[in-house]
Amino acid sequence: MKQIHSKEECTRALTGIGDALYVIGGKWKLRILIALRSGNKRFNELQRTITGISARVLSHELKELEMNGFIKRNIYTQTPVIVEYELTPYSETLNEVLSALSNWGVMHREKIRKERTVAEAV
Amino acid sequence: MKQIHSKEECTRALTGIGDALYVIGGKWKLRILIALRSGNKRFNELQRTITGISARVLSHELKELEMNGFIKRNIYTQTPVIVEYELTPYSETLNEVLSALSNWGVMHREKIRKERTVAEAV
Repeated sequence: MKQIHSKEECTRALTGIGDALYVIGGKWKLRILIALRSGNKRFNELQRTITGISARVLSHELKELEMNGFIKRNIYTQTPVIVEYELTPYSETLNEVLSALSNWGVMHREKIRKERTVAEAV
Repeated sequence: MKQIHSKEECTRALTGIGDALYVIGGKWKLRILIALRSGNKRFNELQRTITGISARVLSHELKELEMNGFIKRNIYTQTPVIVEYELTPYSETLNEVLSALSNWGVMHREKIRKERTVAEAV
């Protein structure tokens, strides 16, 4: 965390975390955004990529991500109609968050690996 | 994200995010860790601080956080017995993640505020 000098700054920082968790928290949202990083995807492709998500939940999550400006829904009116989801430029503002998560995850995996090695050596 | 140069680096980064979300993702874990930043808390205090969490879920989340080394459970054997939860030094490794989330949340709130101001002015 940044150096916090006053109660107001502390509240602001905590509200920020609360807001962020409200918008991108939960089990699926970041997973969906990450799945779209490798290219636009249709609903069924997304469901196949994200193990364990139900169609009902995926549909709900996609609506919320669209509402918050992270993805857009492209409709190609041909036969059959194709609906595709695409990341918006705004979704790139999450890069710092994703990067911090990624670094931490790599570090945590390494820590657990080391603990296991030590435990097995005993 | 860091500059990614190879498929292996990309997989490593994505696995990191997956691991991080697995361990600290979900609706409650970061909220619980944040609640403990202002000081050790007993179960009931935590439940009061974290709006909307049920006792069953809080108990489950606390066990997982303890298992992953983020918190420890202190038991004071007096009458009545007091059980208190405390952050471990390892929980501080999440600071970069929390800081990124906080910055992003503050930025996002500001964006939404501006959009509203524009919408109201039209």
